[in-house]
Amino acid sequence: MLNELDLIFHKEKERYIEDLKDFLRIPSVSGVSNHIGDVRNAAQFLASHLKKIGFPYTEIVQTSGNPIVFAEWIVSIEKPTVFIYGHYDVQPVGDLSLWVSPPFEPEIRNGNIYARGASDNKGQLWIHITLLDALVKAKGSLPFNVKIVIDGEEEIGSPNFLSFLKSYKERLDADFVLISDTAMLSEDQPSVCVGLRGLLGFDIIVDGPSKDLPSGLYGGAVQNPIHALIELLQSMKDKHGRITINDFYNEVVPITNQERKEMRSLHVDDEKIAEQLGVPALFGEFGFSTVERQWIRPTIEINGISGGNNQTIIPSRAVAHVTCRLVPNQRPEQVFELIQRHVLQNTPAGVRVTLKKHSEACPYVAPINHPVMQLAKQAYTYGYGKEALWIRAGGSIPVVEMLAGCFGIPIVLMGFGLPTANVHGPNEHFPLTNFEKGWRTLSWFFINMEKVFCNL
Amino acid sequence: MLNELDLIFHKEKERYIEDLKDFLRIPSVSGVSNHIGDVRNAAQFLASHLKKIGFPYTEIVQTSGNPIVFAEWIVSIEKPTVFIYGHYDVQPVGDLSLWVSPPFEPEIRNGNIYARGASDNKGQLWIHITLLDALVKAKGSLPFNVKIVIDGEEEIGSPNFLSFLKSYKERLDADFVLISDTAMLSEDQPSVCVGLRGLLGFDIIVDGPSKDLPSGLYGGAVQNPIHALIELLQSMKDKHGRITINDFYNEVVPITNQERKEMRSLHVDDEKIAEQLGVPALFGEFGFSTVERQWIRPTIEINGISGGNNQTIIPSRAVAHVTCRLVPNQRPEQVFELIQRHVLQNTPAGVRVTLKKHSEACPYVAPINHPVMQLAKQAYTYGYGKEALWIRAGGSIPVVEMLAGCFGIPIVLMGFGLPTANVHGPNEHFPLTNFEKGWRTLSWFFINMEKVFCNL
Repeated sequence: MLNELDLIFHKEKERYIEDLKDFLRIPSVSGVSNHIGDVRNAAQFLASHLKKIGFPYTEIVQTSGNPIVFAEWIVSIEKPTVFIYGHYDVQPVGDLSLWVSPPFEPEIRNGNIYARGASDNKGQLWIHITLLDALVKAKGSLPFNVKIVIDGEEEIGSPNFLSFLKSYKERLDADFVLISDTAMLSEDQPSVCVGLRGLLGFDIIVDGPSKDLPSGLYGGAVQNPIHALIELLQSMKDKHGRITINDFYNEVVPITNQERKEMRSLHVDDEKIAEQLGVPALFGEFGFSTVERQWIRPTIEINGISGGNNQTIIPSRAVAHVTCRLVPNQRPEQVFELIQRHVLQNTPAGVRVTLKKHSEACPYVAPINHPVMQLAKQAYTYGYGKEALWIRAGGSIPVVEMLAGCFGIPIVLMGFGLPTANVHGPNEHFPLTNFEKGWRTLSWFFINMEKVFCNL
Repeated sequence: MLNELDLIFHKEKERYIEDLKDFLRIPSVSGVSNHIGDVRNAAQFLASHLKKIGFPYTEIVQTSGNPIVFAEWIVSIEKPTVFIYGHYDVQPVGDLSLWVSPPFEPEIRNGNIYARGASDNKGQLWIHITLLDALVKAKGSLPFNVKIVIDGEEEIGSPNFLSFLKSYKERLDADFVLISDTAMLSEDQPSVCVGLRGLLGFDIIVDGPSKDLPSGLYGGAVQNPIHALIELLQSMKDKHGRITINDFYNEVVPITNQERKEMRSLHVDDEKIAEQLGVPALFGEFGFSTVERQWIRPTIEINGISGGNNQTIIPSRAVAHVTCRLVPNQRPEQVFELIQRHVLQNTPAGVRVTLKKHSEACPYVAPINHPVMQLAKQAYTYGYGKEALWIRAGGSIPVVEMLAGCFGIPIVLMGFGLPTANVHGPNEHFPLTNFEKGWRTLSWFFINMEKVFCNL
């Protein structure tokens, strides 16, 4: 069967790439009004394509934003069901002058296909779609049940996705979710992402005098809201990068020696990263390696701060936009309570402090002992000649947290992107070798999937 | 002679006020290009007026900005010479809808004249000009030498004034400078300002990664420039409002018990001020009263701070705009050296810090034992029935520091403004009683001035 799929791939490869180019030509940028038509065209393009492959049910689901493409093929209730998630929307292109070839005129150079969305997510999604096509070609039907959901607003935080999940909940019932929208550790080291940090975002607003005051007249007599804000912020973290909010680390699951050993084996070159980022040295919580700090340690980060101007004034107000990244088993609402308590106990004299929560997401950890997770890890051996490593990511992917919260099934993140692919930047690309290796990896995964679920 | 002047005042009062209204009708706002013509008209108006009074020499001195009006009347080298400083430019009017009557259509309501510039400085300057007119009317000539300089850029920091002073230095030689451009302590408590704080302004620029980084991916791994900036700022001041930069207070002249006693006698109501400013309580350096903190203690004030935005990023840069108010005998260049040393010793890991000095002024203290200072204090008894108090001001008046630095003669700050006169705000006004009381105060001062300088 695998040989058969390989043969089909080599026969159809050229057409697959041509179809992907057609997909990439649609400038389906989300979040900007002048691309609304393109976004609808992209949804239409996918729905037609899935119908052509043989999906008996396809629907363009209208939302209050961009539509979601949903297709379903139930071959037998005895067979396992995979829920494939992807997205057809892309990021804005930014400064056009930085692109070697126009972002919506896909071009192949040095074995890479260059276009906005080439990696994120059209190219990776195309592996799934063409593989489903090949499976149908080989067998006349799919060997398992597929529910495919293609989002049109992933790049703007999927604001309408949760209500879609809720209204289609029963219909979307599946054994696991499969997503190819993350990057591998490096070109020659595949990886499966098994953890994401959660998020808690809030603003700290410090109010002092009812209007800006001249700093000559009042300097020394009233608390300056900026001083008060920095005193408060400074009280939350020490010089060694450790968060000093009481009980903040209480719920953090300690890292096992095994995990720690694995992370240390990744050979991260701090000096090289520092050079790439343009900083004199990396910096983070004392006692943890860079990877540990990024993946399994919580943070408090001031994303923005503002107050006053460049006149000689004492400003009336100062504001900081703060986000915490959370790790298992921290919960955003609980951490927010700790922060509220801390602020109450540490409010500087002479000002009023207000906290405003604006975003939250729970951390996600995959059940790595689940057989489908083990299968995902092994599958890369067929595509890349090397088993994948478990990795975590420092960020938060809202869709993953929504899916995990809604269904309680494993979310398998088998990414084929590269950290060097300029995702969201100019000259985004996707290596054609990754298209092929990814295709082979997933074909092995799909063929062996049935065994896993029959043994359960 | 004083009676004679009083009679002239009552005879001419109506005309004086009408002339002042004409002056106030000229919208001589400095620093905005669409008032360049008005600024020139105001200078012309003053020059003509001074000529009409009898000044044998008047000049509209061109600068690279707004012109300066200069007039000179040397009656005898035996007589004392007073250098009168004032300014004809005014602040922008701000939100017009907040004005009860239009800012450039002077209107008298409840005994106050309402207009932009009514107090600052046209109204107060008009006391001098009409009094010179009355002296000439009484005697046919002035009883002392006058050099009058009227600035057109005071409200924008007098950027061209120092070079004017330097080129007219010999011509401007005088016994003392007289300025009426400050406020009295209150309506029924006149005061003479005998001290101004100095200024040192600088930006602290903290650079981290060469571009903004996603806080998910890099949060915890690199120093956040905002965190570094607040750590650095926080290291400069403690919770009790005391500046913690090494040697910062070394040059501060200790306050005498006498001064302290006088300041305490001012009966400042902290709670009332807090209520007026809209803060829960006043706050400042531990161990000093509010007035002491405002007048004779140095400060470090963050006037503005900025960095990042409300996205989930680690920003590339964060900047603070900082000013210190300095007191005798602190010198801005010396304090800046201390700050440079402090920054060097306290730069947080993982970032680069740059300091950029942008303003400096020495503190000013009047020679209160000089007879002309004593005379100024006594003069208020004639106008207000009460001797003036020595007060200091927390701010810095660049012109005063330029004059003091250039001539080394006493700068006599006999203000007739009120703290409640909405200077720089909407509905600026000047009480006509203060015009009259100020006029009488200055007439006593001028008539008695000769005695002082003959006795020297």
